[in-house]
Amino acid sequence: MKSHTNIDWDRKARTSLPEVIYAENKSVEHLLDIFDAHVQSQTPLLMTRLTDAQLHALAPHNVFCDLVARTAVFRAPKIAPNAPKLAVVTGGTSDHKVAKEVISTAQFFGLNAVLFADLGVAGLWRLQERLPELREFPLIVAIAGMEGALFSVLAGLVCAPVIAVPTSVGYGVSQGGQAALTSALASCAPGVLTVNIDNGFGAAAAAAKILRPTAVSEKDTGAIVF
Amino acid sequence: MKSHTNIDWDRKARTSLPEVIYAENKSVEHLLDIFDAHVQSQTPLLMTRLTDAQLHALAPHNVFCDLVARTAVFRAPKIAPNAPKLAVVTGGTSDHKVAKEVISTAQFFGLNAVLFADLGVAGLWRLQERLPELREFPLIVAIAGMEGALFSVLAGLVCAPVIAVPTSVGYGVSQGGQAALTSALASCAPGVLTVNIDNGFGAAAAAAKILRPTAVSEKDTGAIVF
Amino acid sequence: MKSHTNIDWDRKARTSLPEVIYAENKSVEHLLDIFDAHVQSQTPLLMTRLTDAQLHALAPHNVFCDLVARTAVFRAPKIAPNAPKLAVVTGGTSDHKVAKEVISTAQFFGLNAVLFADLGVAGLWRLQERLPELREFPLIVAIAGMEGALFSVLAGLVCAPVIAVPTSVGYGVSQGGQAALTSALASCAPGVLTVNIDNGFGAAAAAAKILRPTAVSEKDTGAIVF
Amino acid sequence: MKSHTNIDWDRKARTSLPEVIYAENKSVEHLLDIFDAHVQSQTPLLMTRLTDAQLHALAPHNVFCDLVARTAVFRAPKIAPNAPKLAVVTGGTSDHKVAKEVISTAQFFGLNAVLFADLGVAGLWRLQERLPELREFPLIVAIAGMEGALFSVLAGLVCAPVIAVPTSVGYGVSQGGQAALTSALASCAPGVLTVNIDNGFGAAAAAAKILRPTAVSEKDTGAIVF
Amino acid sequence: MKSHTNIDWDRKARTSLPEVIYAENKSVEHLLDIFDAHVQSQTPLLMTRLTDAQLHALAPHNVFCDLVARTAVFRAPKIAPNAPKLAVVTGGTSDHKVAKEVISTAQFFGLNAVLFADLGVAGLWRLQERLPELREFPLIVAIAGMEGALFSVLAGLVCAPVIAVPTSVGYGVSQGGQAALTSALASCAPGVLTVNIDNGFGAAAAAAKILRPTAVSEKDTGAIVF
Amino acid sequence: MKSHTNIDWDRKARTSLPEVIYAENKSVEHLLDIFDAHVQSQTPLLMTRLTDAQLHALAPHNVFCDLVARTAVFRAPKIAPNAPKLAVVTGGTSDHKVAKEVISTAQFFGLNAVLFADLGVAGLWRLQERLPELREFPLIVAIAGMEGALFSVLAGLVCAPVIAVPTSVGYGVSQGGQAALTSALASCAPGVLTVNIDNGFGAAAAAAKILRPTAVSEKDTGAIVF
Amino acid sequence: MKSHTNIDWDRKARTSLPEVIYAENKSVEHLLDIFDAHVQSQTPLLMTRLTDAQLHALAPHNVFCDLVARTAVFRAPKIAPNAPKLAVVTGGTSDHKVAKEVISTAQFFGLNAVLFADLGVAGLWRLQERLPELREFPLIVAIAGMEGALFSVLAGLVCAPVIAVPTSVGYGVSQGGQAALTSALASCAPGVLTVNIDNGFGAAAAAAKILRPTAVSEKDTGAIVF
Amino acid sequence: MKSHTNIDWDRKARTSLPEVIYAENKSVEHLLDIFDAHVQSQTPLLMTRLTDAQLHALAPHNVFCDLVARTAVFRAPKIAPNAPKLAVVTGGTSDHKVAKEVISTAQFFGLNAVLFADLGVAGLWRLQERLPELREFPLIVAIAGMEGALFSVLAGLVCAPVIAVPTSVGYGVSQGGQAALTSALASCAPGVLTVNIDNGFGAAAAAAKILRPTAVSEKDTGAIVF
Repeated sequence: MKSHTNIDWDRKARTSLPEVIYAENKSVEHLLDIFDAHVQSQTPLLMTRLTDAQLHALAPHNVFCDLVARTAVFRAPKIAPNAPKLAVVTGGTSDHKVAKEVISTAQFFGLNAVLFADLGVAGLWRLQERLPELREFPLIVAIAGMEGALFSVLAGLVCAPVIAVPTSVGYGVSQGGQAALTSALASCAPGVLTVNIDNGFGAAAAAAKILRPTAVSEKDTGAIVF
Repeated sequence: MKSHTNIDWDRKARTSLPEVIYAENKSVEHLLDIFDAHVQSQTPLLMTRLTDAQLHALAPHNVFCDLVARTAVFRAPKIAPNAPKLAVVTGGTSDHKVAKEVISTAQFFGLNAVLFADLGVAGLWRLQERLPELREFPLIVAIAGMEGALFSVLAGLVCAPVIAVPTSVGYGVSQGGQAALTSALASCAPGVLTVNIDNGFGAAAAAAKILRPTAVSEKDTGAIVF
Repeated sequence: MKSHTNIDWDRKARTSLPEVIYAENKSVEHLLDIFDAHVQSQTPLLMTRLTDAQLHALAPHNVFCDLVARTAVFRAPKIAPNAPKLAVVTGGTSDHKVAKEVISTAQFFGLNAVLFADLGVAGLWRLQERLPELREFPLIVAIAGMEGALFSVLAGLVCAPVIAVPTSVGYGVSQGGQAALTSALASCAPGVLTVNIDNGFGAAAAAAKILRPTAVSEKDTGAIVF
Repeated sequence: MKSHTNIDWDRKARTSLPEVIYAENKSVEHLLDIFDAHVQSQTPLLMTRLTDAQLHALAPHNVFCDLVARTAVFRAPKIAPNAPKLAVVTGGTSDHKVAKEVISTAQFFGLNAVLFADLGVAGLWRLQERLPELREFPLIVAIAGMEGALFSVLAGLVCAPVIAVPTSVGYGVSQGGQAALTSALASCAPGVLTVNIDNGFGAAAAAAKILRPTAVSEKDTGAIVF
Repeated sequence: MKSHTNIDWDRKARTSLPEVIYAENKSVEHLLDIFDAHVQSQTPLLMTRLTDAQLHALAPHNVFCDLVARTAVFRAPKIAPNAPKLAVVTGGTSDHKVAKEVISTAQFFGLNAVLFADLGVAGLWRLQERLPELREFPLIVAIAGMEGALFSVLAGLVCAPVIAVPTSVGYGVSQGGQAALTSALASCAPGVLTVNIDNGFGAAAAAAKILRPTAVSEKDTGAIVF
Repeated sequence: MKSHTNIDWDRKARTSLPEVIYAENKSVEHLLDIFDAHVQSQTPLLMTRLTDAQLHALAPHNVFCDLVARTAVFRAPKIAPNAPKLAVVTGGTSDHKVAKEVISTAQFFGLNAVLFADLGVAGLWRLQERLPELREFPLIVAIAGMEGALFSVLAGLVCAPVIAVPTSVGYGVSQGGQAALTSALASCAPGVLTVNIDNGFGAAAAAAKILRPTAVSEKDTGAIVF
Repeated sequence: MKSHTNIDWDRKARTSLPEVIYAENKSVEHLLDIFDAHVQSQTPLLMTRLTDAQLHALAPHNVFCDLVARTAVFRAPKIAPNAPKLAVVTGGTSDHKVAKEVISTAQFFGLNAVLFADLGVAGLWRLQERLPELREFPLIVAIAGMEGALFSVLAGLVCAPVIAVPTSVGYGVSQGGQAALTSALASCAPGVLTVNIDNGFGAAAAAAKILRPTAVSEKDTGAIVF
Repeated sequence: MKSHTNIDWDRKARTSLPEVIYAENKSVEHLLDIFDAHVQSQTPLLMTRLTDAQLHALAPHNVFCDLVARTAVFRAPKIAPNAPKLAVVTGGTSDHKVAKEVISTAQFFGLNAVLFADLGVAGLWRLQERLPELREFPLIVAIAGMEGALFSVLAGLVCAPVIAVPTSVGYGVSQGGQAALTSALASCAPGVLTVNIDNGFGAAAAAAKILRPTAVSEKDTGAIVF
């Protein structure tokens, strides 16, 4: 391992979560160095926010890449049969990319994540139709852009806490996700918790800390590298 | 009439709406001057955003004051039996003050305004319970603070256009009404139109321009003075 | 129809407007799936905010594409001879793109939309010259960038309500349309209603809800897909 | 019960949390109406963000008022011996008011809340000294103003998820709590979830949804009234 | 003269304008010290942004106080018969306070300032009626709050340059004067120059630098003290 | 002339300035249409903010293009021997582009514009060295990015009014020119007037309105087209 | 000492600075508790941002209160004869309050602080006159509101580093100190370092860390309590 | 040397720092002109923020280019054996680019800069492990993006002052570096001084002014050109 990065091998013991590589501002060279260190120690590894160049560089290696989620996984742990269940709800098809990041991350952390796509409140029947199913989940990640009304409506209809992921979907006042973010934070419905705009990884990480899946592999001391 | 103000006596003919006095930054003296000019010409007059001092100064005169709406009306026109109907929906009791300004103004302009209070989306059944009634109205003014999710949910459930009035109810990111304003503008439901934060007068004025009540008095050339 | 999207086939009955596809963040594949579902059911369809790649993919199909408005229409309903009339006013030639989105959408919803181009207030005579014509319309959509003074001036001169569409035309303090948006919301002239920056579709949708054109085709249950 | 308010008596069944009165913009009269309705039905009630006038009006009644938290409780449920435990950590003495709102609310919802005061990161040993205790808790609410560095440091040291409550403590760039809020949302440590600035109630409500205390009284269908 | 302030006695020679005291954050003691220094040297002095306490302290002295403009003048220079003329136009009566500061300052600098009150664009005829008079002035100061459409409309109708003074009149998005400020800066009409919100003094000072009135008194080396 | 644009041929008589084409959002086709109309009437024309494509399209025609200023001029009027003089001062070489737009525009309007480059306050001697020359000018346009300290320093040293043009030079807090803009508006030195960020054209237009050069050609009724 | 506060007695050894009480959000009771703890241990103590009520409560005790700086000192250490010198420069008399906080704090930390008042750049000669003296100091704290041009001008003229303290002096765009803050951060002159708006304490604390005065009393383990 | 630039050859004598070229908005031609002037006078020169085109143009010349720091150095002075030491700490590998700019600049100014990479607070042990080494340095430059918690934690653990460089690393609320900037300014730990986002050069320049390395070459009168 080179000098540019301090891998936090011990993070799992300390915080219950293995380290994950946030790839956005890393050079391909740095990324491959970190990846090699994990291959040598056979440690599971999740990489998020991969650029096209990074995905291309990882492709020949023994990893599973998700081009929509922009993630890559090495030695993904198996999800236990009795793994905790996580509902992942989106407002529209434009939120799909972030939903996939939530699901990739949640699976890497051992959760059984289930997608409920395109339930935005402009057509409220879509959400109401799926409500009986949704009410079975102990935790819901809700993903929405534009005005983010989904967060409040959903939280007012279920017992589970709702982790809101505002997305940078929209234009004008909702450009960059600000309108959805303030809707999540100012929600009139108790039980909404918020993460940063487009932060699917963060929502899944918090979900794993809440639901505490039991480990399924002997050696899963992965590492998140920021 | 003194030199400090140019009353727009002709506004009704030009824009269909009589002038209304926006009192917020006027001295008590200026306000009484303008009021006297209307008393002398026996022209109907609505005053909005009255301060305590202004309400106190108007009290001895022949006006109807609404202490919640902070409005005063002189020679209010009668509302015609077949006057157009306007639904005024609030998210919570904190929005009551603005709702009263909408109703005072709408009545002054000849509309039949009906209040639907406290239908916020945290308890969605409250809105759904009143939906059959609401669907009878040709136009709805929706008033909400905090995250303003009411605007999108309502617009997705009715045929009528929705005029959204964000209110300065809330704290933190919703302080001053910004979160509700951006929710109204970024709404995922088609048919939402927005006015400035707390602008109950503006919503009612636009409603009158849309619904075009027929005049009920011979002489109603009121004047709005900004 | 694939699992990624829940088409709101019932929207027209519920909200008076058919669904329209907002294409901005959809992949070409998703878009074509949705389009195919409409072709199979022979349901009219409007798509907005199309990218170059999306327009290219739709070109071989039986649709009418407007490259300036960036819209595509399948089985556009005929506009009734007595269709309600909508005036569409722009401040400058830079607002043309948004004006075309208003017109495409208004026509799809059955309105008779008429363009009044380049009437910005820097040369006030241009607006005054067209005023007699404009005063014949029951509703006006006004489109302006920069400082958006057009909204207030126009609303002070006509009886019709004005729907303001701020555009992201300008630089410095008006970059992104913020200056025009705040001008619309803070207008000193009663009767101005606002939609999000560049939201020509939203203005036309609200106009259709206000003017309520009668249906002209038997089967026009289009769908908006966000 | 008067017409101004729709009490959501059913909220507990639907969302697991009883209704709570958010008093900030309510008149004393409205508040007492709501309170009376609960007294008559002997339903537990929590009121938050009480003004001096409201606290004064409630004082003669059978309620427990906390003048620092600005809350009042009627028929507080008993906390079960095996109630879930919640750690409440503050950065400085200035955050005390919000911490008390968290604790009042958490207790009303049946949690065993424990305060860890004044552990700001400027003197890191204060946090490290209490770390062994803190690591025993399944969930931590962290409360901090100024730059909010506490959220990231704490989340990097424990297995439990951290609910961050930014406070409006500070001046200049941290005035109103914005700096602490963005620190919470942008945290480099996985597992931080955020609520609105000063929203102690919201943090405790989410904590109750996560920890799911078992009910301890037969009749505890309280109501939150926004 | 005490040590707390460095009076810029030489400013007039260097910049053509005498010094003026900006009183806002000065103690009454500091203000009287500076005033005394001018009395002793019999130098003309203008003080702006005076608080009630400051005005009260100055009252017994040989100064002319304007309670609306919140200014006080000592040894005001006489305005020459052929002094340059300055038009001061307001949008509404709420802008009166700032207009008075412009006039007080302009007169102190030797200009012949003429007020045109209440010409806001919501009733465009008011502006058009006064246009022939306004066209006679070599320079216009325009004062408006809310959306500030007056600046662009006026600049499009006259040959003179327009100095725009946005005022902090309004609420919601125009609170603090931001909407009017951005309208002035983003104006579509060439020839608009802007000063800070409510900065009547600055507009008049720039006007004096442009119009260059000839001095009328031998000894007028006043001083601005910030 | 096509229907998309209303040329304001009369602007010069009404506002003293000929029309100028602001090209930024115009298609090449629209631009050439407008240009042709001027060629046919042999009316002088200035075009600003030209894109590369627009400059390329104009190149074969009888115009003078300035690639740094991004302007093109057709039938530029001759500058009179006794034309008013305008000083154009920049803070650094990065402001050169905007300075060139000021100079192109000022010359088109008949002013004798002189450049004083690279006089930023970090090396104050550069400004002081040129001060005797600068003091000869009746008006100064000052152009600066970053923190814009140049505006206040310069205005404190000269009798002439200063028109400040903040530029979008810088990064972090000065990105987009906001820091320089607020410095210009909040200047502690009287006599600073501000235009929008990067608005060299606006500064020169206001300068021409202030200095009123006499016309030098018989037929110079140019037109600004926004 | 009560349980509400963790005094950081060890801070001096760890960070070279004793603890100081930031009093703004503390109750009088908490403050007196902390004060008593220091009296009992005879530890020097500085309290900043004291409210009127807090100053009143401390008055009867053995402390030195500065009503302008709003500080109180217990057992102030003597300043050594060879103590490092710190220049404290203000732009105007309005910055005096913050300058006094810098001086109180710097003296408590053992520095020899010298005030240079009212050297704003609108009258540049005031700064130039004092330049020879200022150049003798190893470090300068510069304090300015409005547009904060002082920071760049000063840093361009001296060898010493400049710590900029933007103040919340001004109105409109400079309200709250934002304009001065961005000027400090975006300064074109190398060597400017910035602290939060009005943070005189922070500037002095950093100055003490840079200049490292030698201790003058045996027992000076004060404590800052946030 | 051409007329477009005024090189400040005298800066070193006046401010202790030689001039450095900030290249961002300069054309390649301007840059080479300035470079040639330095080659001819054999004056050391540092260029920062070089674009790819600029680096390419400089490559054939006798300069040392750092492609990560985006700097180029001509005749770099030798670092003295007893040169002052500067610690450069980064939060993550994404901050590497800015760290390299700090190091390049510090070396050019004669400092002995040492990198401590990847010590972000999410894994606090990484910082604690290096603390004994860090405590030996008289000054620390800390570089962090996202929420910038590193600044406060580090300043609470060392005696040296900390210069914080917020970086534009992150997305959502931390996009552009705003969250890290406000964390630095609002830090609860005394002794944090801040420079603009990504301003590695500014941090190193201030460090050189604080640490005052002795000159090592006879002729090192470089020049910064903004």
